[in-house]
Amino acid sequence: MTTPAFGGDATSGTVSGALDAERRARVAWSRLVEPADEDAYQLLTTDGYVDGLARIRQGSSSVGRAAEARLATFDLDRELRATDAAGARILFPGDPEWPVGLDDVTMPPHCIWVRGDVDLSQVTERSASVVGARAATPYGEHVATELGYGLAEKGFTIISGAAFGIDAAAHRGALAADGVTVAALACGIDRVYPAAHRALFEEILEFGALVSEVPPGSAPLRHRFLARNRIIAALSPGTVVVEAGLRSGSLNTARWAADCGRLVAAFPGPVTSAASAGTHDWIRSHQAELVTDAAEVAELFGDLGDDLAPHQRGPERPEDRLRPRERLVWEALPQHQSVPSTNVARTAGVSQTEVMRALGRLELAGLAQRGGRGWLRAEPGSDRARGVGDVPK
Amino acid sequence: MTTPAFGGDATSGTVSGALDAERRARVAWSRLVEPADEDAYQLLTTDGYVDGLARIRQGSSSVGRAAEARLATFDLDRELRATDAAGARILFPGDPEWPVGLDDVTMPPHCIWVRGDVDLSQVTERSASVVGARAATPYGEHVATELGYGLAEKGFTIISGAAFGIDAAAHRGALAADGVTVAALACGIDRVYPAAHRALFEEILEFGALVSEVPPGSAPLRHRFLARNRIIAALSPGTVVVEAGLRSGSLNTARWAADCGRLVAAFPGPVTSAASAGTHDWIRSHQAELVTDAAEVAELFGDLGDDLAPHQRGPERPEDRLRPRERLVWEALPQHQSVPSTNVARTAGVSQTEVMRALGRLELAGLAQRGGRGWLRAEPGSDRARGVGDVPK
Repeated sequence: MTTPAFGGDATSGTVSGALDAERRARVAWSRLVEPADEDAYQLLTTDGYVDGLARIRQGSSSVGRAAEARLATFDLDRELRATDAAGARILFPGDPEWPVGLDDVTMPPHCIWVRGDVDLSQVTERSASVVGARAATPYGEHVATELGYGLAEKGFTIISGAAFGIDAAAHRGALAADGVTVAALACGIDRVYPAAHRALFEEILEFGALVSEVPPGSAPLRHRFLARNRIIAALSPGTVVVEAGLRSGSLNTARWAADCGRLVAAFPGPVTSAASAGTHDWIRSHQAELVTDAAEVAELFGDLGDDLAPHQRGPERPEDRLRPRERLVWEALPQHQSVPSTNVARTAGVSQTEVMRALGRLELAGLAQRGGRGWLRAEPGSDRARGVGDVPK
Repeated sequence: MTTPAFGGDATSGTVSGALDAERRARVAWSRLVEPADEDAYQLLTTDGYVDGLARIRQGSSSVGRAAEARLATFDLDRELRATDAAGARILFPGDPEWPVGLDDVTMPPHCIWVRGDVDLSQVTERSASVVGARAATPYGEHVATELGYGLAEKGFTIISGAAFGIDAAAHRGALAADGVTVAALACGIDRVYPAAHRALFEEILEFGALVSEVPPGSAPLRHRFLARNRIIAALSPGTVVVEAGLRSGSLNTARWAADCGRLVAAFPGPVTSAASAGTHDWIRSHQAELVTDAAEVAELFGDLGDDLAPHQRGPERPEDRLRPRERLVWEALPQHQSVPSTNVARTAGVSQTEVMRALGRLELAGLAQRGGRGWLRAEPGSDRARGVGDVPK
């Protein structure tokens, strides 16, 4: 769950001392060039991060004057202090928390800034990206809320872009179901855009995470949204579009998803609604599967996660799929001798109501059992230890 | 356009004398067994219509006692008089007006009863079957009306079942566009079911046709609707479903359509509407193509008609695709010397307003031209003689 912080534990005199040369270069590249800059990726392919940076410094790169000018004033320590100040951490490819799916996209981010107490790799494993029109109809918002709620109930993390309309509805649906939700931003992780979503950002942060590939302080520019869409697409096994006009940005996300081998699903709507013209077009041209509820999305993306996941991982343990609060409760349970639930609540730091709800779910999942004095963990490997996915509803 | 009538032109003392033995037997079979009776078709496959009838007479058939009892009281002359009284004609396979598509269905009708002044074979060539829920929503009825109108405008005949809801809306849309529409009935062609649709039946009859495979007087029984659905499906190159619940009879029609190699298309709707659950299910399982308007249906079914039609016909002439009233006007035009439009109206037996509208369309289609005194047919083979389908809108 934890990533090395850039602060007191730095081993050199500067906070940047904790990073190797490649990682330091990756942070620099994030500041010097715009996300998904094709010239930059071309140079990186031939020269790599460290030598590529040297090329810019020499003025012999093809990435342009702007990058050279930015490099002249680039200060890694300042970047890391800003990251710290934002309560964020930086993830790099190969880090345990790096979502491996990000490597599937054509121009993978150099690194990403993350805020939130969840392990981004773990929570995005069983997940769905939900995107759609900012100018959504009440129908679309209703559908997106139900979808976010229903998928969260099935243990899916909802990934979206925190925009008005469908994005916000999907995040809120997941939050209403006590689920995990992740917002990938087009601006720095310390900025709130749109500003009206401050409360939503705080809720997402409490139960999920904010993610961005642009450094703290970066403004939400138009081309950054288009680049950001590939992060939304790559973080999950599939993208669902709920309402999109014919030239909607949501279809840009869907295109990224298809490009990196992800499944694309879309909700239909009334043919009389322009807000569904884009989803209908994608279904009609067989670029997206028609879905009508959370169960159908779970079936599509869940199967894909199990059957077609491009990256193998170690065997999954049932507790890996717990929601953050259930995980706290599970970790507070003794292994050998039962204790009253009030003790568990105190140890876990959650309310008595919450602990009872969590214990009920843990029991159904075969991860907790009742003992003489209260509760303890279920015997590992016992008949009752099965995945949370099996919890009857 | 004409079919031998069963009346004064009979060559023997009875009206049935005009029919050969096979045709007489086909009319009998229509009365003796229920439509799409599998036992009957099994016997017909081995013995044929005439010998099969003899088998029933001998009591050695497998089609059951009911057929034997009905045969004992069967009276062909009475059937033909009832047909005459209903203003109907009977079509048999091989007749010029027999829609060859009917032969594609698993259990083709023995014969069909038809009322209406159009040539059924010609008007069904460019056509679409439109079916859907009787308990349609206002959304569904709106969509079906627009679809019927839009397809009729493009020269498609609308085939449906004259039921409440989607069927009626599709027929009415076609009629509103001065199009041709055909209703395939589950009862005898002399009955009006549902009774509330008397005015609709009359309008359909004026500009299109009523069709049934059960003899005059037959009641609209449930299994006859299911059998009737295969007639709706087989008469056109494709079936469009507008609103269908999960176990809707419209999906039965769609299944018949798929079974006889026809295209199936379906309209989406709100996922919150149970009336669209069946169409969504068919699109989702890739049994139906998603369509959102008449143009998309025309593209699908028009292509199918051109490219995949299982039966070859002679080269089509532009005038073959005219609506009945335009055809009347075209036939009233002189070939070599122009006449005033008032003369054309008198010859065609249509109003001056109607003749002017028809002449305008004929001119656009390259079938009429202006001359010194008024109007005449366009030179056949001239540059301007192109299909009605090319008429600019």
